[in-house]
Amino acid sequence: MTERKKLTPLSEVGEFGLIDHISKHVKLKNNETIKGIGDDAAVMSYGENQMVVTTDMLIEGVHFDLMYTPLKHLGYKAVVVNLSDVFAMNAVPKQITVSLAMSGKFTLEAIDELYSGIYAACEAYNVDLVGGDTTSSVTGMAISVTAIGAVEPGKAVYRNGAKANDLICVSGDLGAAYIGLQLLEREKEVFKSNPNVQPELEGNDYILQRILKPEARGDVVELLGSKGVIPTSMMDISDGLSSELLHICKQSECGCRIYEDKIPINDAIKPMSKEMNIEPLVAALNGGEDYELLFTISQADYDKIKDNQSVTVIGHITDKTSNAFLVPKSGEEIQLVAQGWTAYNPD
Amino acid sequence: MTERKKLTPLSEVGEFGLIDHISKHVKLKNNETIKGIGDDAAVMSYGENQMVVTTDMLIEGVHFDLMYTPLKHLGYKAVVVNLSDVFAMNAVPKQITVSLAMSGKFTLEAIDELYSGIYAACEAYNVDLVGGDTTSSVTGMAISVTAIGAVEPGKAVYRNGAKANDLICVSGDLGAAYIGLQLLEREKEVFKSNPNVQPELEGNDYILQRILKPEARGDVVELLGSKGVIPTSMMDISDGLSSELLHICKQSECGCRIYEDKIPINDAIKPMSKEMNIEPLVAALNGGEDYELLFTISQADYDKIKDNQSVTVIGHITDKTSNAFLVPKSGEEIQLVAQGWTAYNPD
Repeated sequence: MTERKKLTPLSEVGEFGLIDHISKHVKLKNNETIKGIGDDAAVMSYGENQMVVTTDMLIEGVHFDLMYTPLKHLGYKAVVVNLSDVFAMNAVPKQITVSLAMSGKFTLEAIDELYSGIYAACEAYNVDLVGGDTTSSVTGMAISVTAIGAVEPGKAVYRNGAKANDLICVSGDLGAAYIGLQLLEREKEVFKSNPNVQPELEGNDYILQRILKPEARGDVVELLGSKGVIPTSMMDISDGLSSELLHICKQSECGCRIYEDKIPINDAIKPMSKEMNIEPLVAALNGGEDYELLFTISQADYDKIKDNQSVTVIGHITDKTSNAFLVPKSGEEIQLVAQGWTAYNPD
Repeated sequence: MTERKKLTPLSEVGEFGLIDHISKHVKLKNNETIKGIGDDAAVMSYGENQMVVTTDMLIEGVHFDLMYTPLKHLGYKAVVVNLSDVFAMNAVPKQITVSLAMSGKFTLEAIDELYSGIYAACEAYNVDLVGGDTTSSVTGMAISVTAIGAVEPGKAVYRNGAKANDLICVSGDLGAAYIGLQLLEREKEVFKSNPNVQPELEGNDYILQRILKPEARGDVVELLGSKGVIPTSMMDISDGLSSELLHICKQSECGCRIYEDKIPINDAIKPMSKEMNIEPLVAALNGGEDYELLFTISQADYDKIKDNQSVTVIGHITDKTSNAFLVPKSGEEIQLVAQGWTAYNPD
C-alpha cells in the first residue's frame, strides 16, 4: 500500500507565502523585461517597438470543467489563448500577468500543478511572467491573464484592413477542439451516472489535445514575417470560423466567399464526428476553440505562401454589397451566421 | 405613482452586443494609445519611456459586498486601486483593460452603472480603456483590471531601495477606510435582522467616502516630481501601514522606527472609532484600503517636502540588524507585525 502524499491547504500558506512560492520558480527571459513579480507593478521597456496588450478571463463552470481538465493543461491553455491574441496582431508576446481567484477547496499542490502549466507555456513561447494577483473566491476558480507583446511600428495587423479580392487563409485545421469537447462532455455524463465506468478516451489523442492543450500559431506569424507578407487583416479563431469571418467582414466593410471543399479538416476527427452525429463542417464553422489564425492577404502575396503546409487558402473577400457566404460542394451558396453566444446564466 | 423603468436582462444583449454597448462610450485621450477596444489586442507606443503594468482582481463576496457598494463606486474603485499601484512605481497611468465576469442576475442597466464608474475614473485620471473581456459567471461578479503606465527610464521606484536614515513618509491620512467598512458591515447586520430599519450613515461622509470611493495619489507623485524628489522606495497602502512597511523593510533589508504621534489620522474618524470601540491607531496600522502612498526619501530631500500638507514624515529607516518598531507616545517600543491575511474560504 502506498502512503497518500500529505496535501497543504492554502489557508496554511497565506497570500504572501503563495506569492513567494510562485515567484521563486520564475526566471526572466526577455531583455524588454526590466522588473518582474514583487513590486506594485512590473517594468518593461520597448525601445523603438510598439506594444500590444490583451486580456482574457476564464471561469470555472463556464470556460473549463475541472472534472476533465487537468490543472496543468488549464494553466497552459489560459496562457496560450492570450498569446494567440497577441500573434493575431502580428506581434510577438513578451510578458504575461496572471491573476488567480480560488476557493479553499484548492491545495498548494493543486496550485503548483496549475502554475506548472503556466510555466511550461512561458517556456514554450519565451514569455516572462511579470506579475499578477492571488485572491480567495467564494466558490470555484477564476483565472485572468493579460499578455503584452512587441510589434514594429506600422506592422500591427487589425481586423479592418481586408479588401475585395484579398485571399482568405487559415492556419492548421478546424473543428477538432469542438469534437474533443463533446467527447469529454459525453464521458463526464457516463461517469456521473456510473463512477465505476472508465472513460473511453483511447484513440482520440488528436481531438483531446486540441481542446485540452491548444497551441498559439506563433510559427505562422514568423513564417509570414520571413516571407515578407503582412496580412491585410488577421484574428485568431476562438469562437469558430463563421463568427470570426463575420467580424472581419463587419470591421473591413466587405463580404466574403469561402469554399466548403477548401476548409481544412483533419481526418482524425471523422470517426468521432460520425459516432456523435456532428458534421465535421459544422464543427469547423461554428465549433470554436481552435486557436488557429484567420487572415487575409493581397493576391500579390499568394506565391509566397502557396507551398506552405500550415496555411490553406479557403476563399476570397468580396465587396461590401455582398454578404458572407459558404459555397458548398454542391447546391446553392449558404449565408454564414454568427454562432449563438453563451447566455448569461441566471444565479 | 411612478412607473418602474424596464430593465434589460444581459441574455437579451449577448456578448458582442455588450462589447459594442461598452465601447461606444469610450474616447481615447492619450497619444500613447494607438488602437483601443475592438481587436484581438490594443496597441500602444512608448517612445523613449519605459512602461509599468499591474493587475488586480476583485471578487464579489471577498473584496466587495453589493448590499452596500453602489455599482458606480465599485467600477470607480476597481480602476483606482490599480492606478494607485502605477503611481506607487513613480509612473503615470495611461491605459487600462477591464475584464468582467457576471451572472445572469445582472441587467444591462446594472452593467451601465458599473461602467459609468469605470469611465468616471478614466476621465478623472486621464487614462484610456483599451480592452478587456466580458463573460458569464456561474455566480456573482468578478472584475479584473490591468493598468499600464509610463515612466522615464531610471525613475521607476521599487520597494527595495530604502537605506538607513532615510525618512519614512505617508500621504494623506490613514485608518478611515477601515472604520467606514466596519460601519457599513454593522448597518448591514442591522438591516438583515430588520429590513425596515434605515441605515444610520449620516454624519459619516468622510469615512464612507474613503472606503467606497478612494482616490489614487497621482497628485503626490506629481508633487515629488515637481520638487525633483525621487523616493528611495515607494508602495501604496492597501493592506495597512504595518504590513506595507514590513514589505519595504524585507525587500530593502532594513529596519524602521515610526512614531505613534506622527501617524496622520483624520479627526473625522474619532467619533465612530469610539462608538465601535476600535482604536484609531489600530485602524491606521492594520486597517488597509487607504490607497495612500508610503515612501522613503533621503534626508537631503526633507526641505523639499516639509511644507507640503499632503505628506507627513512618520519615522525613519534603521539598519538591517534592527526590526520594525512603533514608538508609542509613552512606554516601550512595539514590534510591528504583518496583518493576518485573508483565509482562503473552503467551498
